Amino acid sequence: MKNDAITRQGDDFAKWYTDVCLKAELMDYSSVKGFIIYRPYGYAIWENIQNYMDKKFKETGHTNVYMPMLIPESLLNKEKDHVEGFAPECAVVTKGGLNELEDPCVIRPTSETLFCEHYAKIVKSYRDLPKLYNQWCSVVRWEKTTRPFLRGSEFLWQEGHTVHATRDEAVEETLRMLDIYKKTCANLLAIPMVTGIKTEKEKFAGAESTYTIETLMKDGKALQSGTSHYFGQGFAKAFDMKFLDKDNTQKYVYQTSWGVSTRLLGAIIMVHGDDNGLVMPPRVAPIQVRIIPIRQNENKVLESAYEIKEMLSKAGIRVDIDDSDKSPGYKFSEAEVRGIPVRIEVGPKDIENGVCVAVKRNDNQKITIKLDKNLPEIINGLLNIIHNEMYEKAQEYLDEHTTRVTTYDEFKDKLETVGGFIEAPWCGRTDCELKIKEDTTATSRCITDKEPEHGEKCICCGEEARHIVKFAKSY
Amino acid sequence: MKNDAITRQGDDFAKWYTDVCLKAELMDYSSVKGFIIYRPYGYAIWENIQNYMDKKFKETGHTNVYMPMLIPESLLNKEKDHVEGFAPECAVVTKGGLNELEDPCVIRPTSETLFCEHYAKIVKSYRDLPKLYNQWCSVVRWEKTTRPFLRGSEFLWQEGHTVHATRDEAVEETLRMLDIYKKTCANLLAIPMVTGIKTEKEKFAGAESTYTIETLMKDGKALQSGTSHYFGQGFAKAFDMKFLDKDNTQKYVYQTSWGVSTRLLGAIIMVHGDDNGLVMPPRVAPIQVRIIPIRQNENKVLESAYEIKEMLSKAGIRVDIDDSDKSPGYKFSEAEVRGIPVRIEVGPKDIENGVCVAVKRNDNQKITIKLDKNLPEIINGLLNIIHNEMYEKAQEYLDEHTTRVTTYDEFKDKLETVGGFIEAPWCGRTDCELKIKEDTTATSRCITDKEPEHGEKCICCGEEARHIVKFAKSY
Repeated sequence: MKNDAITRQGDDFAKWYTDVCLKAELMDYSSVKGFIIYRPYGYAIWENIQNYMDKKFKETGHTNVYMPMLIPESLLNKEKDHVEGFAPECAVVTKGGLNELEDPCVIRPTSETLFCEHYAKIVKSYRDLPKLYNQWCSVVRWEKTTRPFLRGSEFLWQEGHTVHATRDEAVEETLRMLDIYKKTCANLLAIPMVTGIKTEKEKFAGAESTYTIETLMKDGKALQSGTSHYFGQGFAKAFDMKFLDKDNTQKYVYQTSWGVSTRLLGAIIMVHGDDNGLVMPPRVAPIQVRIIPIRQNENKVLESAYEIKEMLSKAGIRVDIDDSDKSPGYKFSEAEVRGIPVRIEVGPKDIENGVCVAVKRNDNQKITIKLDKNLPEIINGLLNIIHNEMYEKAQEYLDEHTTRVTTYDEFKDKLETVGGFIEAPWCGRTDCELKIKEDTTATSRCITDKEPEHGEKCICCGEEARHIVKFAKSY
Repeated sequence: MKNDAITRQGDDFAKWYTDVCLKAELMDYSSVKGFIIYRPYGYAIWENIQNYMDKKFKETGHTNVYMPMLIPESLLNKEKDHVEGFAPECAVVTKGGLNELEDPCVIRPTSETLFCEHYAKIVKSYRDLPKLYNQWCSVVRWEKTTRPFLRGSEFLWQEGHTVHATRDEAVEETLRMLDIYKKTCANLLAIPMVTGIKTEKEKFAGAESTYTIETLMKDGKALQSGTSHYFGQGFAKAFDMKFLDKDNTQKYVYQTSWGVSTRLLGAIIMVHGDDNGLVMPPRVAPIQVRIIPIRQNENKVLESAYEIKEMLSKAGIRVDIDDSDKSPGYKFSEAEVRGIPVRIEVGPKDIENGVCVAVKRNDNQKITIKLDKNLPEIINGLLNIIHNEMYEKAQEYLDEHTTRVTTYDEFKDKLETVGGFIEAPWCGRTDCELKIKEDTTATSRCITDKEPEHGEKCICCGEEARHIVKFAKSY
């Protein structure tokens, strides 16, 4: 059954996206432009992401803290690159309790400066290192054009901020957290990704190097889905974060920060969704199984449905039941638009035969399953199969939409005809990135670890290539 | 061993309090006045409270959402009592992305107006009711005088907002959530409390009735620790929240809201703490057991300590080990100031004898325990005993500091000599509350369910008493 209310992906992908956001009840608009409401179904996805990641953070020695929401402008101004990057998009509080503030504050667009100030105060000795802090919160960046989950004036995220005694330790931390982000995408969200380092132009304001996770949406555009920054000692010098090392000399700390946000919800929608709505990866799905009783007023149907629910629920499966007075067709459609991985239909005939019918959301396959004590195991197996199928399908799409080119003409052609990531040799200069962006709207997503062929030239300027870079149109 | 850095409670209770906040590393000050940093140890307590309560909220059918951080001033102004209550303490954002805002926004001091606007949009029919939403977030209220956890310009909290088809359902919800708050205080925090309804003067801005949980600190002052509000249809009318009922007529919804905040950390500190620092109730303690090896460089001491840690950790006990090169005395003192419920000492002689020594933080009692497979069960039992002892001790204090009076002279005398709650007959008029506050600084904390004796008079004006009210000096 088609959900007529959703625009088809092929007709207008952007419209399809916002239709799904609204119809699946992930979010709603508020009366402040660019600020969205995370509705229960959307917020539950974020909670599942939080639970998964928070556990990984704690297993790797991190603790959560909470820093103030407001940053005095004078504090934000301490690191030059950083303030240049963020000041233009800040929300500024100028009045507090009816009085004008002497030092106006911005609502945190990110919290580096607050962590730096705190670390400068509490880190004295090598014994105090490393400090491995993380914070779950929302941040505000005043955006002109906004889109649910992808670009908003307020979004939810985690921001990790760590300081270390040595460069090696800090670099190791940067990569460790990148690895946790990769695992979250692959193992929780069934989303394959490419990773690499950002160019000078694209790196974080104040970072020495930025590692990124880039995922590919079904319209061929890339989405930056997580970043991990190595700061070196830039902030340490600006904020005087020093410690007394074992050799009895004062040294500056080495620093990292890393974050993912509710953008991941956008990635889930656009990597897996189809014309009928959301397709939820099972491990992060708020509801993994929905039971829909057929002719529920007949003998034993509802009773049987509740028994199934009880059985699955006890096995740790997130299951609900739609026993409303809506028609089965309407119920199917609702389960579909919300992307619930498995729906179980059970009617009078099924009960007679001692079976139920499971329908997989990702490919609509129907499976008849015996109603006995093995049901939870079979459903759990099915959820794993769905996860793997969704991951593989997305990986295939990513592979098919990654093209290696050697000339600018080929670059432009593939970008328009195939889309996705175009791997191209690049000289290393920002000028060429800017020209490519102006000509094609594509930006460099990350520097790959591939080496240019001997004698290969930058597609833009023709000078010797230093890197192979993944370019793409992006969100 | 005394911790010399902490002011004694008897010398200066307020100074003792901030000493404990800082020395136990619960929080630190930031460069924005009134905005504190929740350090790992303090934030971990809040996380444990969140986990406990969030589970209870979900078990009772609530789901989490996230509303925007900013509220347009025009939206806040919609409910008259509400805006009068909150506007004077709002932080106002007047600039966003370098531009002046046409409709300035306040950072949420509480989110009733946002929930109302959303509910007005999504609730159409009796089928859509009830809506049982909760949100974990921080709110900003610009305060002139601030104190860590007790009164801050920003604090962390949860705010539940529900709408219902009938008055009865909404009242039931108000009391259900009050009951969850009571259980949280008693079963998680080992804090006894009194509950009741607020007077007109003290109720929430916009509420029809406010139920409160009041706890008693060791200096004899009360702390409002949680509130649950029944709104009736006040906001519903201001925000046009209507639904089509079963009888095919449009009706206004009935509404509740309820919240607890990081104030609970203040309650933990001031109900249980002593001259040596924090005394953590075991069930909410981030670290329940700390193992301190004695002469740890000697044969097998560290090894044995780690075996104990492993054993306790496997049994679900939150345990750590201090194997730093500090002296045992210093380690004891650190465990003490942080209020870790049990410290386990293990040295060469203990190992020879196949035992370890557990020391209870709440009464310093030492218990020698055999090192065998029963250790985790014994420690778990000990943690429960500590919880009960702490609760009973606090209940005794509460009982000893609750006095029933009949005259104003007696009231003033008991308030100064005994402190705590003074139960007094009251006529029901705000004028008398105001006069009592002016005369004594005590405020009405809640109306009890006790009836005045026949012919009993208001302590203030001498007119006939309508209620017995608990008065107290308070935070």
